[in-house]
This record gives sequence, structure tokens and C-alpha cells, in this order.
Amino acid sequence: MLIHVGYDIEFDVPFGATFLTLLRVHPSRQTDLDGSDRVQVTPGVPVEDFEDLYGNLASRFLAPAGSLRLATSCVVRDSGALDPSAPDACEISVNQLPPATLPYLMNSRYCEVDRMSPIAADLFGSCAPGWNRVQTICDWVKQHVAFDYLKARPTKTALDAYTERVGVCRDFQHLAITFCRALNIPARYATGYLGDIGVPIAPYPMDFSAWFEAYLGGRWWTFDARHNQPRIGRILIASGRDATDVAITTTFGEVKLVRFSVVTEQVKEDA
Amino acid sequence: MLIHVGYDIEFDVPFGATFLTLLRVHPSRQTDLDGSDRVQVTPGVPVEDFEDLYGNLASRFLAPAGSLRLATSCVVRDSGALDPSAPDACEISVNQLPPATLPYLMNSRYCEVDRMSPIAADLFGSCAPGWNRVQTICDWVKQHVAFDYLKARPTKTALDAYTERVGVCRDFQHLAITFCRALNIPARYATGYLGDIGVPIAPYPMDFSAWFEAYLGGRWWTFDARHNQPRIGRILIASGRDATDVAITTTFGEVKLVRFSVVTEQVKEDA
Amino acid sequence: MLIHVGYDIEFDVPFGATFLTLLRVHPSRQTDLDGSDRVQVTPGVPVEDFEDLYGNLASRFLAPAGSLRLATSCVVRDSGALDPSAPDACEISVNQLPPATLPYLMNSRYCEVDRMSPIAADLFGSCAPGWNRVQTICDWVKQHVAFDYLKARPTKTALDAYTERVGVCRDFQHLAITFCRALNIPARYATGYLGDIGVPIAPYPMDFSAWFEAYLGGRWWTFDARHNQPRIGRILIASGRDATDVAITTTFGEVKLVRFSVVTEQVKEDA
Amino acid sequence: MLIHVGYDIEFDVPFGATFLTLLRVHPSRQTDLDGSDRVQVTPGVPVEDFEDLYGNLASRFLAPAGSLRLATSCVVRDSGALDPSAPDACEISVNQLPPATLPYLMNSRYCEVDRMSPIAADLFGSCAPGWNRVQTICDWVKQHVAFDYLKARPTKTALDAYTERVGVCRDFQHLAITFCRALNIPARYATGYLGDIGVPIAPYPMDFSAWFEAYLGGRWWTFDARHNQPRIGRILIASGRDATDVAITTTFGEVKLVRFSVVTEQVKEDA
Repeated sequence: MLIHVGYDIEFDVPFGATFLTLLRVHPSRQTDLDGSDRVQVTPGVPVEDFEDLYGNLASRFLAPAGSLRLATSCVVRDSGALDPSAPDACEISVNQLPPATLPYLMNSRYCEVDRMSPIAADLFGSCAPGWNRVQTICDWVKQHVAFDYLKARPTKTALDAYTERVGVCRDFQHLAITFCRALNIPARYATGYLGDIGVPIAPYPMDFSAWFEAYLGGRWWTFDARHNQPRIGRILIASGRDATDVAITTTFGEVKLVRFSVVTEQVKEDA
Repeated sequence: MLIHVGYDIEFDVPFGATFLTLLRVHPSRQTDLDGSDRVQVTPGVPVEDFEDLYGNLASRFLAPAGSLRLATSCVVRDSGALDPSAPDACEISVNQLPPATLPYLMNSRYCEVDRMSPIAADLFGSCAPGWNRVQTICDWVKQHVAFDYLKARPTKTALDAYTERVGVCRDFQHLAITFCRALNIPARYATGYLGDIGVPIAPYPMDFSAWFEAYLGGRWWTFDARHNQPRIGRILIASGRDATDVAITTTFGEVKLVRFSVVTEQVKEDA
Repeated sequence: MLIHVGYDIEFDVPFGATFLTLLRVHPSRQTDLDGSDRVQVTPGVPVEDFEDLYGNLASRFLAPAGSLRLATSCVVRDSGALDPSAPDACEISVNQLPPATLPYLMNSRYCEVDRMSPIAADLFGSCAPGWNRVQTICDWVKQHVAFDYLKARPTKTALDAYTERVGVCRDFQHLAITFCRALNIPARYATGYLGDIGVPIAPYPMDFSAWFEAYLGGRWWTFDARHNQPRIGRILIASGRDATDVAITTTFGEVKLVRFSVVTEQVKEDA
Repeated sequence: MLIHVGYDIEFDVPFGATFLTLLRVHPSRQTDLDGSDRVQVTPGVPVEDFEDLYGNLASRFLAPAGSLRLATSCVVRDSGALDPSAPDACEISVNQLPPATLPYLMNSRYCEVDRMSPIAADLFGSCAPGWNRVQTICDWVKQHVAFDYLKARPTKTALDAYTERVGVCRDFQHLAITFCRALNIPARYATGYLGDIGVPIAPYPMDFSAWFEAYLGGRWWTFDARHNQPRIGRILIASGRDATDVAITTTFGEVKLVRFSVVTEQVKEDA
């Protein structure tokens, strides 16, 4: 399957600003790309690409005062398969986890494992370990948290999502991640493209999406506490501890978002 | 100068537990070691050493049920110099910072940059950039926060330290780190040995200490908002985003600390 | 001056619900009323009126399943004068405050005096006591907090407003109230009608408004950290410790607001 | 039964301070007193007694610089009966509750009903209404929260107690109160004397104690989520929304507690 992905974002930059972006497809998907996914910046400024602490492809540039446009449009080859499921994948005991997975057991800004561990134990402590426990966590989050675009805020944490029971993508994933970590299951936050392939079109403007990955049976698996059903065509951009690490754009200096569009849609093979 | 460092820590482990430790001297100081600083575990169990995400020397082992003792005793060669000062070291603009320093600008569990940025701007926004601004932050923290061993708690954040105005080492550093990051100065949390060399003996039992590092003028410099005076003989163990990343021990399974001693003292060269 | 005040509010009540309302004009203004301000409930149900703990006129009724409409329309006689100012009004020492004012020095749900006292001392501790100190607090809040209707949330506290620097009426007042209390100045939250008399018409739909009262020089005075300028025609409905105590409607059982309009406008004397 | 109650408390007051105290036996128990329970202040200063917003007997005085001693010693006649139990007492629907009980359904500083309502619904929503539901709440709190004198802090809220699962008397009661209110059961915080009559002597120094009252079947009943067993000889001092309202002493100005003793013990009738 071929999926057309891209974005077209415009900012107003009154005095100049430095941008850090995570807008390139993840290294693990770069070989699936048809053409380049480098960030096209207008006006043209030097863009530095680098690999960040988590192995994602980051970019950095200095935006001059004025209007700034970021855009990319490319095609990604995808298996077209649904998110894989592995009901037999088991939890790995902490003393056998690969060291690289250990940071994903710990606290992070929006995942207060220290504050939520007793709650996780209350809710999921008696659930049998393994794939099904992570799925049970997703079911719980999906059932207890309502989706509302207007109830997002940048400082909302997993505990806030747990008490407020309303939020957006990232809040669902933060809550599920925190429960996983509290049960010693490595879990990391993921962001990327996710179109409406094979499902009803969402009544929201297309946006980047967030999901999470849990480490079971020796590898990372995709879970999504927000949609909580296998989906087709996720194109990973970046993963990290939580939304702090994988913000699409982090800006230093005053900026104002004036336009934002994201596209993720299946295209015909011969297109 | 030679500094004898070490620890002797005993836990009661009722049912077995996995330990992650950051108890080895930092790679940057390994060549200063006389002998090995590997963690001596009693009873003898296999100990796996690995480099963590931040470049520290971590260890992991599975502790059987029963009493567990961790100990090391070694000697470290040190310059004997005070923490260096560089009043001319300037702040580096974000677009010129080495990518490896960028994670230390971001939010972390105990450093809520998102919630404290306006406060940092109020307090330090009009202070001239550079070394002196970091020093002014340390002065403010030292002046406004009281030290009290009994007011520590594992979930205390920089914002909590700011509102409660009391805490221990780690709280002083978290608050200063958060202010630095809010002003776009990379800052990271450090833990290690710090004895009473050249200063009055503290009226507390010796413990591991925390300080922080700020990136100015192209390198990392030591600051310490708790003591707020140059000190001799810091032996770095680990650095990371905040206390989450550099906990001396992180345990998975029930454990009870029953004994704890740390030694950090100058020894005669011919000893 | 005559001011026409009223509201017309409609709820959808799927299964029946109990309503507590604070929709009647404050006892101190009842004599200014032309006609009754009792809550007109449709469908007609018995409405119980009572004086609450803070001396406000509360109402309670059991709403049956279905559509519920609350309305009132009446005229209030007002001096037409601007909020009075008394630059010479002094702070009263705690040992001389009337006992009835003491609850307004304490913590409440949205006014965390315990957490914000050091901040208040930093910001306003060196400001001379008296009227001008309360005004300085209002100026600070007005200058540092942005108004945004979309950034309201029911759990937002004074500390949240202080860190987020954005909010609605109630957040401005909660923050100013908390600062006052931290400085031992009794301060209480007020809600009522406030039209655009003598000022430009606000670009928002008319709503109930919030302000606060501070106790200085032996009486309560009106302050408003949101508008921060003397206004004409405030018609007090209720006052209390914070927004918890003076919610316009508190409902027990599921309800959905479907329509909401408030009117507050000057009418001709001979109308 | 006769119970000897009293206290002897000493403060260091460097510059003078105003004290508000709730140290007198509650009006409902004044007729049980043998002698006066007025606060004896040394040095002698005028003490003003007044009834506070919640009907408690408060006192206020201005302490001069120097050492300050507060003491009382008196005897209270008590039924000697255990806390009454009424398994048939039912929950009263909000539309039938006496208006005076309604404030005890609402948020207060340490009881964040707004943040904890979904949690209460998860845990106790399917429990049959009535006495047993309040008892089930107490059982849950007692079972999930550990008592630790060293884990008290003045800003700890019900949500903090819920996440940290450790605290002192007041934290147990705040958590239980918040759950009750979230379920529309009026609940208020109580403080008073509670000796070790009929139970093993506690391994802590005697202190004032906290419990709570829930409104069921038309009256207030004593519950105690900390001890969670019927006790003999509670002597109520004050009740209010939460610990904010019934602090034994609230001081305005710097003071240092230097000595503190409380006595609550059964005395022989002919003593």
C-alpha cells in the first residue's frame, strides 16, 4: 500500500525564533520512503538534521522574523496490515529486559509513575501478566476517558487525565503508559501519521496522531488507548518517554501558529 | 589529592528483587580510580554492568530473598581544586547548542519547565545572560529555600520546592535546573560523592550528594544551589535529566533499607 | 439608575436532578429590586429558598426528567456610581478583625494560601500595607495573566493561574484573593451581574461576572483583578470563600446545558 | 465516665503574634464540663472568645514577644459508650438534606471533590447506599493507607493521600470525607480529644485526634477512617469542612513550638 503523507504549517514569527522539529519519518521507516521527507522551510534557511537521544530524526533551524512555512509531501510504502497482535507475548522480568528499554520504566514529565503506582496495582495488579494486561489497560482507559479536543492543555499529565477523565490522544496514551510502567512493563510514547484507512472518517481535521509502544516478548508492539482497535497505516515519526520528547515542533522565541494541515491518505499504486 | 570513597548499604529483601544501581564512578572519572569500583554484592550474584542512556555506568542484579549488602571502597585521585568558576562563560543560543545538550532544556518529571517558565522570566528575565545569571539563580534558591532533612519526599518537584521553600539537596538542584532550562540554559542533575574537604563538617550523616551542571561557553560547569560555594573533591557518579535518571538504587520488588553509610574523605598520598 | 437584569437558561435533564442555585440578588440588594427575583422554573416545581452559610439567597428544587428552563427578569435600582475607591483605607491587624471576616483569611479549594504565601511575600511583602497594596496585587494579576475564554477549567486553582498565566474572570479573582489572604487581608469571592455600562461592549456573550471584595478600614470593598478599573452597576448575587461556594448552579445528577443567556443593561427610568 | 482532658503547649514568639485557637470543648459538650475549659494563657493577655462560622468556640489573643504557654486541664463527663453504629441509617437525597448540611457536600482545600468524583464512583459507585457505604469507604481507606507520623505535611490533600497511600489522622479523614462528598453524602472534619480508653496504648505521644462525621438518616454520625473501630470517649472540640477550618492553633507572625503535651485519660468518678 502507498500512503501519501505530509503537512503544511505556517507560523507568524515576530522577532525570529529557533525551531526544533520532529517532522521526519522515523529511521526505521526511511527505507519505505519514495523521495525525501526533509523539512521544506520557506523562506529558505539552513536546516540541520540530527539524531536525537531517542534515535529520532530531528531538525533545527533559525527562523527569521516574518512568515514561516514548513511543508513536506511524500509517499510511504506500507504493508497495509493492521497493527499486529500477539496474545502470547509475555512480560519480561526487569532483570532480563534489554538495558535500552529500562528508561521506559521510569517517571517522566507527563507520566508520574511514582504517584500512580498504587492506582495501577489496585486496577491491574490482579490481572495476569502479558499482552492481555496491556490490552486491559487500554480498554480501561478507553472506557473511562472521554475524547474532547477542547479539553487539551500542554501541562496535562497522566494523573490529570485519570482525575479529569477527558482529554485528547496524548492524554490517553500518557495514562496507559503510566499504568504499564507502574507494572514494570516498558512503555514509550509514539507520534506519527495515522489516516482513516479502513475506518470511518473522523469528524476532526486531520492531525498528527499519538499512540504508544509496549515491550513484550522481546520486542516493541503498538498499542493505542485512544482508538483501541487495530489500525492500518501508522507511519512512525518519533518515540520517546512522553510528549515532551517528541513534540512536533519546539520553539524558542515567540511564534504564532496561523495555519496547520496534515495529510495522510492512501494513494493508488500507479499514481 | 587522594579521596577515599565508598559505601556500605544493607537491605532486607523479603521475596527477591531486581536492583538497578548507579553506584560506580562516572566514566569521565574512571581513569582517576585506584582499583575497581564495581559494586560488591553479598551474597554473591552475577552483576551486569552497562552504560545507560545518559552515559553513566549502571549495574543490575537479581537479589535473592534475605539480607543484601552492597559495598565498595576505593580511592580516587582528584586535582584538589575548587569547583572552577568562569564569569565570562556565556549562554549559547539554542540554534548553536550541541544537539546532545538539547534534552537538558526540556521538561522532566521533577523539573516542570512548562509550569515554571513565567516564574523564571519574572525572577531572572531581566538579568544579563551568562555565568552570572546561573549564579543569580543559585543565590536565589539558596536564599529562599531552607534545608531540612525531614522535609524530603520522593515526589517533590521543582514547583513544590518553589512553593514549600524547604527541602533537601535534590530539591535545591531541581529548582535551579528548572529555572535554567526555562531561560534556555541546558542544565542537568548530577549525583556523586562530596565530602567535607575544606569546609566545616556537616551536622548530618555523610550521604551521596546532588548538584547540577549548566552548559555555558561551550562546556558543562558545576553549580550547587544547596551549598552555593565552590567545593573541593566532587566525584561524579552520574548525571541525567533529574533525580529520576540518577537514582542510586532503583528496586523492583519489596525491599527495606536497614543500614546506610557513605564515606568520602581525604587520605594521605602515602597512605 | 435602573438596571434590567435576568437570565434565561435551559438544561436537558435526562433522569431528573437536584439543583442548588445562587441566582437571586444578594440580601443587601433586595430592597433595590423592582419586583421579585425568585427563580422561575419551567416546568413548575416547588422551589425552596434558603439563606446559605455565607448569607446568600440560595434556591433548591428537584428537576424532573426533560427540558428545564430557569429564568428571571427584573429591574434593580442602582446608584450609578463607579466602584468606590478609598486610598486611605488601611489593613486591619488580625487581632482586631471582626471574627466574621476571619474565614476569608484561610485556605479554600481554589485559593491555596498555604502554597502561595511565600510567593505573595516575594511579590508584595515590601509593598506598604493598605488599599494600595490590594490595588498593586490587582495590577500584577491584570498584567501577568491573559484572558482567554477557552482556557477555563473547573479545577483550575490560584496556583494554576499563577503558573499558566491565562484564564477567565474567576481565575483572576482567585489569584488576587489568595495573594490578599497570604498577606492577612480578608478577601472573598463575589459573583453577580456586571453589564457594559460606561465601557466598550465586550466581544463575548454576556455572562455572570466574578469579582472580589477585600476588607480594609473596617468594611468590604469591591476589587476586580480581571477588569481592574472602576465599573458602574455591579449587582451582587453571592459571596463566599471562592467559586466553590457561589456557583450559579450546582447540580446533582446528569444535566446538559443547552441554552444560556444573561442580560444586564441600563434601562430608562420611565421605562 | 469522667475523662480528664487538657493540654500544655509552649511557643517561642520572637516578635509578637496573633493566635486563633480552637482549644475549647465544642458547645454541644460544654454542659458535660466540670469547670471551665477557657484557654489559660501565660503571660496573661486578654483572650477573646467567639463562635466561629461553623459553631465552634474559638479564641483569639495577641501574644507578646517571648515565651508563650497555653494550658487547660478539666474533666468531662462522658457516657462511656462506644461510638454508636446505625446500620439502617440511610443516605438522604440532596433535595431533602437540611440546608445546613449542604456545605459539607462541596469542595474544600484538602478535599478535592471535583478531582476525585470519578475515582469515588469507580470504587464505591456500585456499593448500596447507606451506612454500609460509608463504612466501606472507611475500610478501603484503612486498608490502603499506611499510618506514618513522619509523612505528614501541611499541604497534603485527599488526592495526595490517595496517590501516596501514607499519612496521619487528618489524611485518612480527608480522603474518606472526599469520597463521601463525591457520593453526595455530607461529611465534615472533626477534631478533639481521643484517649486510649479500652484499647491498647498507642506507641505515639498523645495528641489531639481527628475523625469525621457523616450525615445519614437525619443526623451526624462519627466515623474514623484512621482507627476504623468504635471508640470510647471522643470529646469533640470543633468540626468544619476540613483541617483548614479546625486547626488547633492558627498563628499570624513567626512562632516556634517548643513543647506540646495533651492528656486524655479516664479518671475515677470519686477522684
